[in-house]
Amino acid sequence: MAVYTEVTDEALAAFLAGYDLGRVSSFKGIAEGVENSNFLLRTETGQFILTLYEKRVHEEDLPFFVGLMEHLASRGVTCPQPVRARNGAALGRLAGRAAAIVTFLDGLWIRRPQARHCAAVGEALARMHEAGADFPLRRPNALSIGGWPALFATARERADEVSPGLREEIARELDALQARWPTGLPSGVIHADLFPDNVFFLGDRLSGLIDFYFACNDAFAYDLGICLNAWCFEQDGAFNVSKGMAMIDGYQRLRPLGADEIEALPALARGSALRFMLTRLVDWLDVPPGAKVVPKNPLEYLAKLRFHQRAVSARDYGLLS
Amino acid sequence: MAVYTEVTDEALAAFLAGYDLGRVSSFKGIAEGVENSNFLLRTETGQFILTLYEKRVHEEDLPFFVGLMEHLASRGVTCPQPVRARNGAALGRLAGRAAAIVTFLDGLWIRRPQARHCAAVGEALARMHEAGADFPLRRPNALSIGGWPALFATARERADEVSPGLREEIARELDALQARWPTGLPSGVIHADLFPDNVFFLGDRLSGLIDFYFACNDAFAYDLGICLNAWCFEQDGAFNVSKGMAMIDGYQRLRPLGADEIEALPALARGSALRFMLTRLVDWLDVPPGAKVVPKNPLEYLAKLRFHQRAVSARDYGLLS
Repeated sequence: MAVYTEVTDEALAAFLAGYDLGRVSSFKGIAEGVENSNFLLRTETGQFILTLYEKRVHEEDLPFFVGLMEHLASRGVTCPQPVRARNGAALGRLAGRAAAIVTFLDGLWIRRPQARHCAAVGEALARMHEAGADFPLRRPNALSIGGWPALFATARERADEVSPGLREEIARELDALQARWPTGLPSGVIHADLFPDNVFFLGDRLSGLIDFYFACNDAFAYDLGICLNAWCFEQDGAFNVSKGMAMIDGYQRLRPLGADEIEALPALARGSALRFMLTRLVDWLDVPPGAKVVPKNPLEYLAKLRFHQRAVSARDYGLLS
Repeated sequence: MAVYTEVTDEALAAFLAGYDLGRVSSFKGIAEGVENSNFLLRTETGQFILTLYEKRVHEEDLPFFVGLMEHLASRGVTCPQPVRARNGAALGRLAGRAAAIVTFLDGLWIRRPQARHCAAVGEALARMHEAGADFPLRRPNALSIGGWPALFATARERADEVSPGLREEIARELDALQARWPTGLPSGVIHADLFPDNVFFLGDRLSGLIDFYFACNDAFAYDLGICLNAWCFEQDGAFNVSKGMAMIDGYQRLRPLGADEIEALPALARGSALRFMLTRLVDWLDVPPGAKVVPKNPLEYLAKLRFHQRAVSARDYGLLS
């Protein structure tokens, strides 16, 4: 839940004076998204989302994100579209933050995904991977294996406060993944954060993807590994192989995986579990006084990581061989 | 910022099946309101607010609140209107909570109120007081002087953690107010929580009042005292007598205060400052682990209370004699 920055009436009015959106009729903070401040903005001409980019988002990356949303939409991926100000800019400043207005996307995110949702997400992920193929900008993945040691370093000394032995377990895991991390896989623009709250549905139909603020260039199959972690585990921590099968199958309907990607899938899923455990661990240990957001529990991802450690092949995720 | 209760897709669908609102196109948690969980709900037929009533709201009070909103609207006070289910009920159950759907009200709340906003609020408060005159239900004010000792008792032992000497100061203040608390003033339905985030404006025009979940029967002038506290102090803690004058004048344009109310105003403003300090103090000392809401600082109201202690007459609030 997130509204970190207060926007005064005067500041909002001054910001909107640069746009052709008509008179404002409503402006409400949205209790979703944990990185940025998001507001629902209604005007005479429609409904929009106004986002203030908070500290985690580097301003130099914003042209990548904004350009990507425009690029993907032009290739048939339904996602929010940046609204340009009268001067042509999609990015402005409001309340001391970089800010953008994007179109409002209909749909609901699924609190308890079923296999049919996982299938739709697999397909949408593949469509996004293909649609992004000719996107000209590049953004390295700072949260892939090269970035994990630095993340771990900030949390190492206090990791055992969260779970006894966690520090040693992460250190071993980093070594294990560095020894087997796949390289040379088909790569391109990945979403890198396609959790259920970033995928909208209208009924059973997937209606759009949102929140491209972790998007970057990396292996496509790593993105699939992230989605397997985010969508296919049950509340009790068990991996649901029917959901995994539906997701992988949905993905392959549009973009069949290569043999190298299939072989790499367990390591990629394992690595992505470690990635989310590490960022959650850092956040967990860094809750400021008066925090407005409850950090997510890193141990959820420790359980997922242990599942991946035991996986032998992509068949453990539901791939039909 | 508040969404305390998660609503699953299935539960939402089952709840909405009882209404004639058409297909849902969006459902987003709103980062406003600190007592209940609020969601923005869009359907084929329009835009609504869905509220889940959390623990602070007693279910037996809901018919009062819902009935009041309908009553006030029928008397020309713009406020959210309960949407009735097909079975005629304005209240249902969702995710284990009492729940209601109300109409969406256009407007923005004013982050930095000016005197013209205070004038509009004074007038709207008087209009609400008059419109509620023939509302048949009654709800005593549990947060008036009779309820303060019990509130204080839950915070007494730890009050000095918040500010040294606070415990003794509150005890003295309770005694002082009990010795001079006015009785027999003109009474009726009051809003009792008309803070800036509960008043919407479109441009400079007040477009509606929301959040009637503290409404109760009490002295009208006490409600004005609450508004003087909520609207007329500056960020630096100083009372802005121009805003006070605008508010009192706005109020009196519709409902002139009696001599007894004018005489009582300093005590009522002082009592309402104590009331908000006490509830904030209790909340401040009772932040649960993983709290999703930052409690408001009780000391803001200690400063206001000290201003009221020094006030001699309603002229100190801007009343033109």
